[in-house]
Amino acid sequence: MAVAERLLVIGGGPAGLEAARGAADLNRPVLLVEARDTLGGTPWESYATLTPHLKPTKEIMAGMLTAVEDHPLVDVRLSTRVVAREGEAGRFLVTLEAADGSRQVEEVGAVVVATGFQHFDPGRETQMYGYYEYDDVITLVDAERMMQAGKVVRPSNGEPPARVAFIQCVGSRDRHIGNKYCSKVCCGIASKQSIEIKHLLPDAKVFIFYIDMRMYGFWEDQLYWRAQEEHKVNYIRGIVTEVIKKGDQLLLKGEDTTMGRPMEVLMDLVILSVGMEPSAGTLEMARVFEIPREEHGFLATVGEPLDTVTTPVAGVFVAGAAAGPKDLEDSVSMGGAAAMKAVGLLSRMSRTPA
Amino acid sequence: MAVAERLLVIGGGPAGLEAARGAADLNRPVLLVEARDTLGGTPWESYATLTPHLKPTKEIMAGMLTAVEDHPLVDVRLSTRVVAREGEAGRFLVTLEAADGSRQVEEVGAVVVATGFQHFDPGRETQMYGYYEYDDVITLVDAERMMQAGKVVRPSNGEPPARVAFIQCVGSRDRHIGNKYCSKVCCGIASKQSIEIKHLLPDAKVFIFYIDMRMYGFWEDQLYWRAQEEHKVNYIRGIVTEVIKKGDQLLLKGEDTTMGRPMEVLMDLVILSVGMEPSAGTLEMARVFEIPREEHGFLATVGEPLDTVTTPVAGVFVAGAAAGPKDLEDSVSMGGAAAMKAVGLLSRMSRTPA
Repeated sequence: MAVAERLLVIGGGPAGLEAARGAADLNRPVLLVEARDTLGGTPWESYATLTPHLKPTKEIMAGMLTAVEDHPLVDVRLSTRVVAREGEAGRFLVTLEAADGSRQVEEVGAVVVATGFQHFDPGRETQMYGYYEYDDVITLVDAERMMQAGKVVRPSNGEPPARVAFIQCVGSRDRHIGNKYCSKVCCGIASKQSIEIKHLLPDAKVFIFYIDMRMYGFWEDQLYWRAQEEHKVNYIRGIVTEVIKKGDQLLLKGEDTTMGRPMEVLMDLVILSVGMEPSAGTLEMARVFEIPREEHGFLATVGEPLDTVTTPVAGVFVAGAAAGPKDLEDSVSMGGAAAMKAVGLLSRMSRTPA
Repeated sequence: MAVAERLLVIGGGPAGLEAARGAADLNRPVLLVEARDTLGGTPWESYATLTPHLKPTKEIMAGMLTAVEDHPLVDVRLSTRVVAREGEAGRFLVTLEAADGSRQVEEVGAVVVATGFQHFDPGRETQMYGYYEYDDVITLVDAERMMQAGKVVRPSNGEPPARVAFIQCVGSRDRHIGNKYCSKVCCGIASKQSIEIKHLLPDAKVFIFYIDMRMYGFWEDQLYWRAQEEHKVNYIRGIVTEVIKKGDQLLLKGEDTTMGRPMEVLMDLVILSVGMEPSAGTLEMARVFEIPREEHGFLATVGEPLDTVTTPVAGVFVAGAAAGPKDLEDSVSMGGAAAMKAVGLLSRMSRTPA
């Protein structure tokens, strides 16, 4: 069998961009397929700024996009999906479908799946926080959109909120809704947003209700200490069991687990820290490439903890949040590692006579 | 300038092994230098089993070692240190010193520093936990050694302990001792060890005293829920301020922050969950390659959060815990990413006439 030279990267977020640029820098032609009409993935689409330095996403990610767009060895196909494949490691035939429904078959030697996550929908299986009922209950993503516009307001009346609460672990660490895992990044994102809210509204009181603050590594002082010490964000260890409307405010009921007593607090704006689930594209690639899903529903890898990117399907690698909750650093490291392994496999196959 | 073909990898732990094998699979000759007399790094030396699956380190890491040892393109130098360097990206001249003091100069094109961490010494700056005073106060690493021998006992009398306490965040999240960061893996390791202790001593009571359980991602149910539900490990949110001897037991004084009351509990064995600091080798490589250290003392990288492995020194990359607290997954992902970037750089330099 002649080994196809080209690498297919599916998904143009941080993990896929890093994989594509990396493989191209190793002199390997890359076909990069993205379902959206722009590169950059979920951070580019939904986050105004990024952890841990609170810098604008479009400013710090722009270089990743142009490196891929301008690379002579990368063929970028936007608004395109992978809908079928045949063949095996060394020579896959993949069917691409463009936005106009036209189809094309392409030959590639190996594949990096970097199709990422979607945010948990807080109205889907848990009504207790009133996301579908109350205008002033929003998600991290809605909040990010307001920050992008430079203005945090109560959707109900357009006024700046005096009291803002984040509720952590919405759709995570929850056996009832079926997501047993921790989504890893929501503590960091809520802390980042709390600092940004205090920048925009210095007089607002901001509260973060949490079970454990998972501010691992340098996030501890880069974000967690900074939010508390420089910005007077209030972290309250507690469980919010219910959000109800009271006058034109929201009443949060629950338990302050540090003080060991019931808690009822009034807020003007409630931000739900929604977790990660496999994206529709990730589920679709599991089907197309017959990649088993691990017990939480993400793409399975083999060789954990010493291999983060190899799937059980020969020639198919994964990078980023398609394999589970990942932060940006995880995603770009995995993008590089997946590119290396995919290109290494093709190099070995080309050197070895069949 | 003629670009030197070879990549130098410094450190033979998970990150360095992955970088070396990865670059060699890309057909690049690699010189792998390790200060110890064996490959495998800190996990191989100090950990009987690894998170999250509690499998024996030597069983699951053996393949990584032999892949490198047997690779025709990897030249492994054990008991060897890098003591000096000249030159720049594309052609570094590095001086290696073997155990017998003999020196040799080697030419390499790029460098991956994977010299890792060392465990915080709990007697060095904090006497409050009695590590130097009481035989039955040990560290995670001491406990791992006992598990490797298949027997957990009180060092003072050789008897199995009836009550075991882990104290988290020793040498981490602590402005006073100067380590402001969270060491990222200690919650996972303590949870792993608590399960292993219950395997060996089913009747023992095991307690973990913590500030936040940072069981991010899949560790949440793989380790944290499993420890509690299957093994009845007791997690207590509290601050231990002092450990003193009482009879032949140890009295832990502090505060149970969930119950909001002072706490005094007697234990037979206390295990200090010591954090990560840059290893001596990491500090030495900072000096030799003039790599700036970031504010916590680890090797600095540029482009955070979208680049985890590029240092400010052209041609020098970092992988694993030399750059900060990292788990095994981080380390191998970074190893792959660093190999890719280093080989990519050399490929580009070779193609570009000077």
